[in-house]
This record gives sequence, C-alpha cells and structure tokens, in this order.
Amino acid sequence: MQLRVTVWGENVHEQKNRIVAGVYPKTMHGTIAEALNREHGIQAGTATLQDPEHGLTAARLAETDVLVWWGHAAHGEVSDKVTERVVEAVWSGMGIIFLHSAHFSKPFKRLMGTPCNLTWREAGERERIWVAARQHPIAHGIPDHFELEYEEMYGEPFGVPEPLETVFISWFQGGEVFRSGLTWRRGAGNVFYFRPGHETYPTYHQPLVQKVICNAVRWAHNPEARVPNVTAAPNTPVAKALEPIVERGPRLHQDGEAGYR
Amino acid sequence: MQLRVTVWGENVHEQKNRIVAGVYPKTMHGTIAEALNREHGIQAGTATLQDPEHGLTAARLAETDVLVWWGHAAHGEVSDKVTERVVEAVWSGMGIIFLHSAHFSKPFKRLMGTPCNLTWREAGERERIWVAARQHPIAHGIPDHFELEYEEMYGEPFGVPEPLETVFISWFQGGEVFRSGLTWRRGAGNVFYFRPGHETYPTYHQPLVQKVICNAVRWAHNPEARVPNVTAAPNTPVAKALEPIVERGPRLHQDGEAGYR
Amino acid sequence: MQLRVTVWGENVHEQKNRIVAGVYPKTMHGTIAEALNREHGIQAGTATLQDPEHGLTAARLAETDVLVWWGHAAHGEVSDKVTERVVEAVWSGMGIIFLHSAHFSKPFKRLMGTPCNLTWREAGERERIWVAARQHPIAHGIPDHFELEYEEMYGEPFGVPEPLETVFISWFQGGEVFRSGLTWRRGAGNVFYFRPGHETYPTYHQPLVQKVICNAVRWAHNPEARVPNVTAAPNTPVAKALEPIVERGPRLHQDGEAGYR
Amino acid sequence: MQLRVTVWGENVHEQKNRIVAGVYPKTMHGTIAEALNREHGIQAGTATLQDPEHGLTAARLAETDVLVWWGHAAHGEVSDKVTERVVEAVWSGMGIIFLHSAHFSKPFKRLMGTPCNLTWREAGERERIWVAARQHPIAHGIPDHFELEYEEMYGEPFGVPEPLETVFISWFQGGEVFRSGLTWRRGAGNVFYFRPGHETYPTYHQPLVQKVICNAVRWAHNPEARVPNVTAAPNTPVAKALEPIVERGPRLHQDGEAGYR
Repeated sequence: MQLRVTVWGENVHEQKNRIVAGVYPKTMHGTIAEALNREHGIQAGTATLQDPEHGLTAARLAETDVLVWWGHAAHGEVSDKVTERVVEAVWSGMGIIFLHSAHFSKPFKRLMGTPCNLTWREAGERERIWVAARQHPIAHGIPDHFELEYEEMYGEPFGVPEPLETVFISWFQGGEVFRSGLTWRRGAGNVFYFRPGHETYPTYHQPLVQKVICNAVRWAHNPEARVPNVTAAPNTPVAKALEPIVERGPRLHQDGEAGYR
Repeated sequence: MQLRVTVWGENVHEQKNRIVAGVYPKTMHGTIAEALNREHGIQAGTATLQDPEHGLTAARLAETDVLVWWGHAAHGEVSDKVTERVVEAVWSGMGIIFLHSAHFSKPFKRLMGTPCNLTWREAGERERIWVAARQHPIAHGIPDHFELEYEEMYGEPFGVPEPLETVFISWFQGGEVFRSGLTWRRGAGNVFYFRPGHETYPTYHQPLVQKVICNAVRWAHNPEARVPNVTAAPNTPVAKALEPIVERGPRLHQDGEAGYR
Repeated sequence: MQLRVTVWGENVHEQKNRIVAGVYPKTMHGTIAEALNREHGIQAGTATLQDPEHGLTAARLAETDVLVWWGHAAHGEVSDKVTERVVEAVWSGMGIIFLHSAHFSKPFKRLMGTPCNLTWREAGERERIWVAARQHPIAHGIPDHFELEYEEMYGEPFGVPEPLETVFISWFQGGEVFRSGLTWRRGAGNVFYFRPGHETYPTYHQPLVQKVICNAVRWAHNPEARVPNVTAAPNTPVAKALEPIVERGPRLHQDGEAGYR
Repeated sequence: MQLRVTVWGENVHEQKNRIVAGVYPKTMHGTIAEALNREHGIQAGTATLQDPEHGLTAARLAETDVLVWWGHAAHGEVSDKVTERVVEAVWSGMGIIFLHSAHFSKPFKRLMGTPCNLTWREAGERERIWVAARQHPIAHGIPDHFELEYEEMYGEPFGVPEPLETVFISWFQGGEVFRSGLTWRRGAGNVFYFRPGHETYPTYHQPLVQKVICNAVRWAHNPEARVPNVTAAPNTPVAKALEPIVERGPRLHQDGEAGYR
C-alpha cells in the first residue's frame, strides 16, 4: 500500500517573487512532492492556500497519511476552521511535518501551545546540520553532518515545548545554534519540525534535505485507523462500571446527560 | 517576599446549585484561597468569571506569581482575549495550576495543544491517589497514597502530551486509573494539572488536597523576571553577527523590516 | 525479511517448581517464542541462563533484532560480562523488551540507571490494563482496557526514569496502580517494559498479552545498521576541522593520542 | 540554613601537569568551591580521589546536599563501591552536577545507562554557549549567550538519554555543536551536566561559568528528607491490602518472605 502524502504550500512567493520563482520553477511544494514521488511506496500530491478550503477538505485529510506544511508570508490567511480541521486530523493519527518558516504557521502554534519564536538573519550563510540521535529513523542514510552553503539563520531559544527527541542540531556560520529536527506526539499524531528551507535558496533541491523529509514522512505515518470522535469525553454509566459500585452522594448530571465543555 | 497567588473560580455552581453552595458556602475559589492564605509566605486572592475581564486584567496577571484555575460549567464564556492573555503570561513565566474539570478550560487546551479529553462517571466513588515521583516538591508531606472517599471518576486515556513528570496516579473504585498529577513547562511557565475536585463533594476542604495545591503553587513559581515581548522573533542584522559574515545570495527582507508572522 | 527475535528465559522455576512447570509445560520463554512464531514476519528462538554464556554470545546478539527478557529467581546469576554485552547491543540498535520481574534484571537496571523497585503482593488478584496512549503501535489491536483475572500486584512508585511514553497503566483489585507499559530509547536501541507475567499464572497464554509482546517487538525493531564502536569518543584533529581553525593555548594530548576514559 | 555542597576533584593534573597547576594554583575543585563559598547561603567543601574512600564516605554524602564532580585522567581509579554509594545517594535525593570530562565518570555513566560518548578536539577554540530554556533557574542571570575564548571542543552526538530539559547548547568555532547543559531526574535526585571546563584553560575562573554552577547547585538541591532504603521493594501482605481481597491461586513466596532480586 502506498503512503499518501499531501504537501501543502502557501504558494505566494513562488507567484510574486521573481527570485523564488526562479529557484523553484515548479513551486516549493511541487518540488518537494516530486522528490517524494521518486521514493518507493510514497504517493505525494499538493494543496495550496489558494485552493478552496486551502485544498484541505475533510475528505482530503481523511486520505492523507502525512501532511507536509510550508508557509511564510501568509500564515494569517489560513482560516481558523481549516487550521482546526488539520489539528484534529493530527490528533486522530495523521502525521505532520512542518518545514522552516512553518514554525509560525497556525497549525504548528496550535499543536505546540507555545510562541514558537526564534531569532533570524537572512544572509545566505553556511548551515551545518548535525545528527544528535544516531540511527534514528529520520536520520536514515544521513551522514553525521551535512552542510547547506546558503541558508537563513534561525537561532535559539526556539520557543517550543521540550521535544520527545532531538534529532538534528544546526551550527551557523554567524555564530548561532538551533535545534533543527525535533519530534513530538500530539494525540495519535506524530509531529516533526525540520528547519531548513528559506525560499530564496535552493534547499529543497538538495538530496539530503529531500531524504530527511522522506524519512520523516515514513516515521510520522501512523498505520492505525484514525481515532473516531477524537475530542469526545464519554460518560461511563454507574451500571456499566467495570467493578460493581453503588452510586453515592449528590450529582450534577442526570442519566445520559452530556458533560460540560 | 510573599508569593502572590490568584485563585480563579468560575463561580457558577456555587451560585446556582444548592448542593454546591452547601458544600462550599465560601465558594470553591474562596475555600482554596483561604487554605493557601494559612500557609507561610503565600498571599492568595480570588478572581471570577463574572468580574470585568474575568478579573484577569494585564495588571492583575503582572502581579500574579501563580494562577490557580477551576472551571466546569462555563468554559465557553471565558473570552478568547483573556485566554490569550493568560497563556502569554504563562509563557512569560507565570506559574499555573489547573484543577479537575479545568482540563477542558480554554487556557489548558491552548497550552497543551491536544484535546485534553477523558472518560468520567459521577458516582461518589472512592479515589486513591498514589505518589509516582517520590520526594517530588509537589508531593512534599504527602504519604505514599491517600484517599478521597467521594469523588467523580476520570479515566484514561487522558488526551494530553507526555508530561515532564508524572507525580500522581489515581485508582478508582469502579475500575479505572488516571494520571492525576502531571507537570509541563510552556515557555518560562510551569504548569501543573491536579485531578481532584468535583464540586458536589468536599474535596477542597481535605487537608492533603490543600497541601498538594500549596506545594504545586510553590513549585510552579518562577522567581525570574517575566520574559518581555515573549512572542517576539527578533532579526539579527548581518553587521551585528557574532562571527564576521558577509551577506550572500538573494533576500526577501529589506534592512530593518519585520519578519512574516 | 524476517524480524529475528530471541526470547531469553531464566528457566529456573519451570524446572524446579511444579506449579510453574504445570502452567508452562513448554517453559515461559518457549511459550512466548511459540506465540511470536505464529506471527507473520517474525522468527523467534530462545536462550536461557543455563546455556553457555547464557546463550547470548556476540554472534547471537548480532543476529537478534529484538531481545525479550524474562527473569526472576536468578538475576544475580547472570554474568556481568554478558550483561554488558547485552547493554552494548541495545546501545548499538538492538531492541529489548523486559517482562514483569525483569524489572530487577541486570540489563534493565543498567539501562535505566535507577533502582527499578516497586511494591508487590502475590494474591492472584485482578489486574486491569488501560491504554494511556491511543493508537500507539504497541497498543495495536488492544481494546481500551483488558483484564488478567489472576496476577501478582506491582505498585507505584516504580523506580524508573520518566519514560518517553506511557502506553499502559494498570489497576489492581487490592487498590494499587502501576505504569505497566513504558518506552525509553537508550542509544540507538528501543526499550519497552511490560508488567504482566507472574510465573504461577497463565498470563503468557493470554492472546492480548501475546499481542502486546508481538506489537512491542515490531515497535522496538530498529532496521538501521548497528552502530559500530558504540562507545568510541573519536578525536577530530585540528587539521580536519570543518571550519578552518588555528590551534591555540596549551594542550594535554599529543597528536593521535587517545582521550582519557 | 546553608546549602551544603561537596566539590569532588580528581586532583591529578593539578599535581602532575605544570600547565594545569599554573592555571589552577588552588586546584580546580578548590577554585570552584571558593566561588561557591562567595555565594549567600552556600557552604562548599572539597573531596578528592586521593582521600580515603575518595572523601565520599556515607557520612559525608549524608551531609552533602549537592555533589559537584570533575574528573578526567583517572575515572578508572574511582572504586566501584564509592560509585555505587554516590549513585544511591542521588537516588535518595542528593543533587549532582557533572562537569566537562565527567561525562565519562563512573557515576555519570551509571546514572545515564548509556555510553555518554562524544567527539572532541583540543585546539583552544572559541565556544559560544546559548540559552535554550529562557528563565530556567539554571540560566538565572546568564545572558542569551556568552563566550569562552579558549575551550576544548565537544561535538554531537552526545550519547545520553533524552534529557528532561535542554538548558544550553554550544557553538564551536571549528564547526560543531553540543548540548552543553542538560537536566535529568534519577529517583529523587536532580542531575545536571554542564560542558565547559577543560583543565588547561581558565574556564572555572570565568564569572558566568561560576554563576551557572552556582545556579545548578541551587536547582539540584532537593530539600526533602532522603529516601530511606531507596532500593527496597516491599511486600504488601494480602491482609493489609487497601481494598479487601481474598488470596487466590498458587504462589511462590511464603508469608513474610523477601522477593527475589
């Protein structure tokens, strides 16, 4: 069975900025999807901000095993409704990969519950990415370190919760460091943040960057069925208690009544 | 110096439900604040849903070292604006304790980034709380286990991210278990969730429950100054790079321009 | 390709205790291996304390993707040399599952760095195992909860480091709780502890227990190549520094000299 | 009440190596203890490898709130008996700070359960330490980053378990990164690893390094009483079960018999 990936792209700078259009004539999301489609067992499509419902209808999310998200200039244009739908899909078991400036995307901020901020500098400087977790599935086939000669700098502190695992850490020529590959679990959904990918540089053409994204997609895939009614808080009636108990004391709720939310 | 605590109470059932009013004639938040005020070095006030801005103005939060939150019937009436203000205060360093049904409060769900759901039963059954982390500051003076003879049941799975530490786990007479004391850090703010406290039972009159809340308040207190501009993502100009670098390649932003959000 | 599992059994009570021999006529490790061998894609063998080098030679470990460990009466008879070999294999990428009383086995204590103690009672009481992490691969096909009618009780506090994930929590009839399914990563090796399995009860004949062990084996498998020289601390000569640097200041080591250990 | 600190020094290079003796005429442990003694509320003494029982008798550990450990050339000369005593003291609640090359000390490796290895280079290069966890107590009074002009390089991957918190990350002039400030909890004991401090450089004379060690000492202090019998696994007799149960099924142990270890 094919692993079904949707690469979501904001698709703004590719259309409006000549430099970006030149670096990514097939768009950023298109470039990433193309790289994923070259992999055995992965089938990647794309969706963009400009599509109806940003291309992320309930039906589309139901058929997406892993969502890859890149956004930068138009985070605020992503509707709250679609954001919530994406977040609930993650809780239910959809994997999600956030790339670079998606640290400020609505779904990432919603899933983290923190500011997700950092320091930055746009100078085309050298970034060296180090593997901190040897033989982690996301580092499959990646050497101990590799370099991106031209990248935007992101610096610590990175305003996220402590991750489950620190997979990559970046060194920058100008003197900063950054935790550039981090994992979390939110509900049944696996979440990975991967730092590189400023739109004016050819980062997503780099084979090792493509390999990390491909590894992350495989890692994030949860083959279990989606959790139905993922936000439900079911009442267990006294009569169905697993150990026999007798109701005692006063209560607020009548039989069968839903809880407060 | 006194540790300044604000106990926030929804204050709905105390006013509308005769049973709750009977159990907590001084209200739930009033009862908790009174218990905290008996402790050396703690000074606790209260705020409620019905106060202007729910009693949680920027000035009030600036003077609150630790906020204790109890809500149940009216989570939806808490304004999004105040919720965001509370969440930002936590990121900046304010400690926060969520009690019982506050698992579904807006600030808790915002900080967790998960559904925060669970199963429940209102039968006045026995709950036994076990210490899982010995000599944790939040378990100070608490025996290996203690019982609440009448409590509402909350059952796993509890829809929260993996905690930093599991401090308490509850056993229920009807056959369920629940992680009833969990810690997280969100930005500079320490977060603790403590399960007990259904409003129709006298839980917050129980000395050991009061002791846990008091311990948690001390644990959650971050004595450092609040982080200013906690969501800022400052640009570091090339000219001020810590290691000398020369700008290369194309860029999106002009000097001094703010980043996208 | 087959996933290669070695089920290690202490094999003492099966030989000396008539009750245990009656419950497990094919031994405990034999019973577990048989269950695993019924699964598609898994090939399980056994090894015991009484085998030369406890059956865990370097060659055997090199061909073991995941090791399952059960011991109780003779932890002290496991040689330190074999313990260290097992631990290094885990660091290099071998998965390992510790069952029940193996909480006090030498390899588990070595990998945890903590006392690994707990409270216990042998009364044939009911244990109910709850899933705390929905749709976790180790909970594949496991209902929200299941019961073992006759089990030994293990109670909190469980003296282990905070896990990566809490997958299962147990409820006991006599009033205790226990985190009965926990994951950790040690080096490149995935570690899972699973509580049930007192030798006088037929626990390992139970299909859901077998299923959890099978799931855990698949989860623990790290398909990456083993890390060579897993304890090495290589020197990077100045001349090979990734960024050009000039040696400065005094030093302890001559060129090519090994570091202290 | 004074916080009682013992600074343990290997005291080998200070005696044998003229460079080190010149940089630290009062020894390294002496220099660190002196800095701590200048702080309000801290009382620091020293102990060395050459003292009887390395200066770490049971009585001394009982009176030590936090132990600071520096070793490098003679890890192997630390007796296993004293190592175990230190480790049990940590489990019981003694705080411990490991400095620099103590990553390969016996107590650190015992507490981590991993190889604790890394890459290194002795070139007197620049290290820049970044705060990753803002307003963490260990970063009290520390700016966003600070530099050590001459230091040994340590590079990732650092062979330790995922920490509770990543407090500092280092940038090195030669191109590497390292998680240089990490916290863990082992039993009731707080553990902190802090990277800087190669013996041929004046690192421990640096005020900010001294401040971090001082902060870490305060953070690691657990004011609770030490856990007695920290490795005990007590039996709970059926007759004393918290919920009435009747013994069923066969058992291995007679009443009052100790469990296997």
